[in-house]
Amino acid sequence: MERYGYEEYDAPILELSEIYKAKSGDELVSQQTYSFEDRGGRDVTIRPEMTPTVARMVAAKRQELSYPLRWYSIPNLWRYERPQKGRLREHWQLNVDLFGVQTIDGEIELITIASDIMREFGAEENMFTIRINSRKLTSIIMADYLGLDAMQAHLMIKLMDRKSKIPKEAFEAEARQIFDASEADSGFKKLVALSEAKSMAELPEKLLASSPIKQVQLLFTHLKEAGIKNAVFDVSLMRGFDYYTDIVFEVFDNDPQNNRSLFGGGRYDGLVGLFGAEAVPTIGFGMGDVTIADFLQTHELLPEIHSETDVYLVVIGDVLRQAQGVAKLMRQEGVNVAVELLSKKPEKQIKTAVKKNIPFALFVGEQELNSERFSLKDLATQGEEALSLERVIARVLDRRNRGVKSRSDLE
Amino acid sequence: MERYGYEEYDAPILELSEIYKAKSGDELVSQQTYSFEDRGGRDVTIRPEMTPTVARMVAAKRQELSYPLRWYSIPNLWRYERPQKGRLREHWQLNVDLFGVQTIDGEIELITIASDIMREFGAEENMFTIRINSRKLTSIIMADYLGLDAMQAHLMIKLMDRKSKIPKEAFEAEARQIFDASEADSGFKKLVALSEAKSMAELPEKLLASSPIKQVQLLFTHLKEAGIKNAVFDVSLMRGFDYYTDIVFEVFDNDPQNNRSLFGGGRYDGLVGLFGAEAVPTIGFGMGDVTIADFLQTHELLPEIHSETDVYLVVIGDVLRQAQGVAKLMRQEGVNVAVELLSKKPEKQIKTAVKKNIPFALFVGEQELNSERFSLKDLATQGEEALSLERVIARVLDRRNRGVKSRSDLE
Repeated sequence: MERYGYEEYDAPILELSEIYKAKSGDELVSQQTYSFEDRGGRDVTIRPEMTPTVARMVAAKRQELSYPLRWYSIPNLWRYERPQKGRLREHWQLNVDLFGVQTIDGEIELITIASDIMREFGAEENMFTIRINSRKLTSIIMADYLGLDAMQAHLMIKLMDRKSKIPKEAFEAEARQIFDASEADSGFKKLVALSEAKSMAELPEKLLASSPIKQVQLLFTHLKEAGIKNAVFDVSLMRGFDYYTDIVFEVFDNDPQNNRSLFGGGRYDGLVGLFGAEAVPTIGFGMGDVTIADFLQTHELLPEIHSETDVYLVVIGDVLRQAQGVAKLMRQEGVNVAVELLSKKPEKQIKTAVKKNIPFALFVGEQELNSERFSLKDLATQGEEALSLERVIARVLDRRNRGVKSRSDLE
Repeated sequence: MERYGYEEYDAPILELSEIYKAKSGDELVSQQTYSFEDRGGRDVTIRPEMTPTVARMVAAKRQELSYPLRWYSIPNLWRYERPQKGRLREHWQLNVDLFGVQTIDGEIELITIASDIMREFGAEENMFTIRINSRKLTSIIMADYLGLDAMQAHLMIKLMDRKSKIPKEAFEAEARQIFDASEADSGFKKLVALSEAKSMAELPEKLLASSPIKQVQLLFTHLKEAGIKNAVFDVSLMRGFDYYTDIVFEVFDNDPQNNRSLFGGGRYDGLVGLFGAEAVPTIGFGMGDVTIADFLQTHELLPEIHSETDVYLVVIGDVLRQAQGVAKLMRQEGVNVAVELLSKKPEKQIKTAVKKNIPFALFVGEQELNSERFSLKDLATQGEEALSLERVIARVLDRRNRGVKSRSDLE
């Protein structure tokens, strides 16, 4: 996120429950949150999502902030629901928001970032698909094309959103119910035909000429220019939350073993305005750790975890104080050193280092202190070498700088 | 913490309330927590401190873990109390724990780390004092020297802990009340004499010969060896929590404007055992962000905050797409770039960059794209230079590497 000029923000884990009630749909607040009354009589909720919070914060400082405003955060979020694959009661989510940009450049930037993050994780273009739709188009479809009123449209969007999670029969029965009785058959047929459109070109002509479609086409042109080839239009893509107002997108895993939405976002120009300020155009997405971890596991992209400790200092005999002196010198040069404190046999100390996944063991005993040459053991290769402390430090730092893929490698 | 071989752990913000009730004293759980019943009927609390959680976690995996076990975390903690200087409802706290070390080497390591952190913040030795006491000594004082029973001793320790926060008269009255009526005067006099001892040598001889004092003396010898000269013995130092079993320490601000405890810790060998496992010797401390920020402010040590964004890309005219291409190249080399998206006048774009505290502005217009030379403006010095993109990238990365004091500077 920082590569794209985004600044990290922080926010409290507790919010007044009311900020979720209007903005996140009913089900979430009434059934799936950790809500309670605090000792001051306030109805509060442990944040189940970050978007209402960031909208509230921007609304409060709208005039002091300068735009485009790029913010990100990686908060933990809580929902009271049955833990299952891809959903835990606590999870962490990267939240990205771009405020103040009304043009499609906002969507281009956020979708590009979403794609870059996936690529940075090592994902190939064919492993995931970015599905894109327009809420404005959905509104036209609901009102003009299917002839639904506002309440029917609301129900239909929620139903479409659940489509992949419920049996076909249940979906059809519920969809027919939403239409007026007289329209149930014909309306339902139009709906099915539409939702089976495999590309933009298969949409009815009337919709193809609409201005939301022009916007979507412009977006696709620019994404292709930016080198993103795995984005597709999906007229049936809904996003659960009510607050989206225009483009929405979702990143899907292409693997048949994990064929599901990984994360998504879209434009919600009205949300900041709900908190008592003038509206601020906003586009954002949230990327949860649980679904991404499933994706990385499925595609064998999970990174190896290394210890942050470089050296385990094995103390031989009664020289702990002197060994601490050696550790101090190494730390001053930037080496991360753990010192054995339990007077265990050297073999046992090495076992501890291996179990902790520490790359090197350094032996310090009477003899080493006298000769000022210390045995450094590479615990992966089992190679061992007697070196001056200066050489030990150089060797260890060299391995860390080569081994860890950090930004400095790129420079 | 990683310099000393400590590993970062994470834990949930919600715990069953019962884990705090036995371990943290009554006042905390019954009056100062965010506690509620969750949708599953559990009595839960948003963590007011981390220590019971980490003890619970270690108890659950006691046999799989290898010792010495060094763990740290920087959790947010919540207490429902009146916000005031040094105390907020939510704060963040560095928590450090060393498990499995029975000897004084544990105390030496943790107190050395506490001192090193202060020095790393830029604090001089004369800005703070490390006060040290022994709970075992306190027990001997309470039982043998002052003749108090267990309940009286408990009340007296709590009272001593509050001594600096209440009027002298209130302290004296409460102290007299704790003694049996027949002992009120003589006991109180002994207490005052003791608490006014300015060094270890002023303690009554009977106490000086006790084994806890030997342990404290050993600790001071080793701290001096480790170069720590601002540690003092303080017989009146109590720590609020009941779970301490031996050495306790607190870091105090020496500045008369902010003369208070900054943070502290000690040994609590019994805590892991409370969670159904065998006891594991443990020593730890917690360092809160609010008190440390006050300290740094008082001593003018607060670090300057820099933007993580290196370059603000000022777009001149209708070349946003090409400007995005330039940004992409820079990002691939590791430069953090924010691109203006709002078609503002160049002067206004520069203003935005200045407001966001971004060090450089890079101008991209038709002319720059054609000549492949771009104006890079240093927004601090106002210096401006036309450079190839390659030179721009080198200049920016050079400034970042010089400007930010990171670990790589030390290497």
